Amino acid sequence: MNFQPSTSDPSRPFLTWQRILDWAQEHYRDRTFNKDERIPTRSGLLYLVQRGTVRLMGTTQLSSHDSTDGSLPPILEEAFLGFVSAGQPFEIVVQSPFTLSAYSHIDQTSVLWMYWHELDNWPHFRREVFNAFHYQHQRKLLWLSTLGQRKTIDRLFGLLTLIIEEFGEPTPDGYCLPFPLTHGQIGSAIGATRVTVTRLMGKLRKKGLISTYGDNLICLPMQSVDFNNDSSKSS
Amino acid sequence: MNFQPSTSDPSRPFLTWQRILDWAQEHYRDRTFNKDERIPTRSGLLYLVQRGTVRLMGTTQLSSHDSTDGSLPPILEEAFLGFVSAGQPFEIVVQSPFTLSAYSHIDQTSVLWMYWHELDNWPHFRREVFNAFHYQHQRKLLWLSTLGQRKTIDRLFGLLTLIIEEFGEPTPDGYCLPFPLTHGQIGSAIGATRVTVTRLMGKLRKKGLISTYGDNLICLPMQSVDFNNDSSKSS
Repeated sequence: MNFQPSTSDPSRPFLTWQRILDWAQEHYRDRTFNKDERIPTRSGLLYLVQRGTVRLMGTTQLSSHDSTDGSLPPILEEAFLGFVSAGQPFEIVVQSPFTLSAYSHIDQTSVLWMYWHELDNWPHFRREVFNAFHYQHQRKLLWLSTLGQRKTIDRLFGLLTLIIEEFGEPTPDGYCLPFPLTHGQIGSAIGATRVTVTRLMGKLRKKGLISTYGDNLICLPMQSVDFNNDSSKSS
Repeated sequence: MNFQPSTSDPSRPFLTWQRILDWAQEHYRDRTFNKDERIPTRSGLLYLVQRGTVRLMGTTQLSSHDSTDGSLPPILEEAFLGFVSAGQPFEIVVQSPFTLSAYSHIDQTSVLWMYWHELDNWPHFRREVFNAFHYQHQRKLLWLSTLGQRKTIDRLFGLLTLIIEEFGEPTPDGYCLPFPLTHGQIGSAIGATRVTVTRLMGKLRKKGLISTYGDNLICLPMQSVDFNNDSSKSS
């Protein structure tokens, strides 16, 4: 489902990707960002991560608070919605009271953008983009499954499993996220505080369900990662 | 984004849809279900809701519990992941420890199915299906935004807003869900118990943020629903 430009799989449209990169440069449609920089976006455009990793965040204006006293400003809470890695598309949806935003999660993250209709110039690539959104949708359904769990520790462990399955890399310590993810960011995804996440991560570590490696990179033991994206099996 | 067969919009591929219905009947690929009946599904197939409403649920096997005492059976929790209405596609993803499942949410819900490659027989329709998954992905990102909220009442109100915006129908009492959604089902989506949902729904009702109508149908006041799926606006 992934159409990483760096992949060696010959079925991947590497040549198309190169043509799109050239096109983006020619039309000043690419830009590189530093870690945690906000990527200026407009809804209605299609973005592609060329290099690095993008972090998607959702902001909600909490109107359940401001109705009893109209003078209070509405509270804004930002939630971590996931990563978009190199070769993957993303877009920014705006629907009151929700706003999505994109940040460069690591240094030297490059993004290019186009209008949706410009995608028609590359019909095969258009299909890849829709396949990628389709895949992302599947992952988000699994993510929603884990967020429905009542216990915070279950939501936490489920979320870490999903993220590391998708973005982790093999190391001697297991499969590890190749970039840090703060406890505050994790908490914002599962509706918990940073302090709670720190405490529960300690619990998971003690049980041997996760480990941390180097500069606070989160790992899962080798055997607990299911890399079979087994969409062909019977349920 | 929706390709409801009943729509009067001339851009909708009504004729294609009729051809697909005929094809499904001819090949015994359609079936009608009663309320709350589980729809037998296989991952790797594409399903289309012909009539009625499908409820998607996610089951998680909670492995964070069973590691300290291997003799305990893992706990299963089911989470409500959303509805799929007539004309919309869905699919069932299986990725350990997560399993999705589909239920007929109302009586006389009809579903048809096909292999993905069979979709190539209707190239225009294929595009519609991917557009529909793309739209569902956007909605799920908003759903994730609301589930990241720390307070249960915020998650609850955000979720109800999203669902009623998408599936609600205008009535004298506001926009209302045309079918019941139990407090247990809502709770399973936001990581809360049925009892908590009942209590918090009472709070939201007292604040005038929601109302209920007839046989426990949930409504939002007219003015609080944003039907502008404004993906063309700047953010």
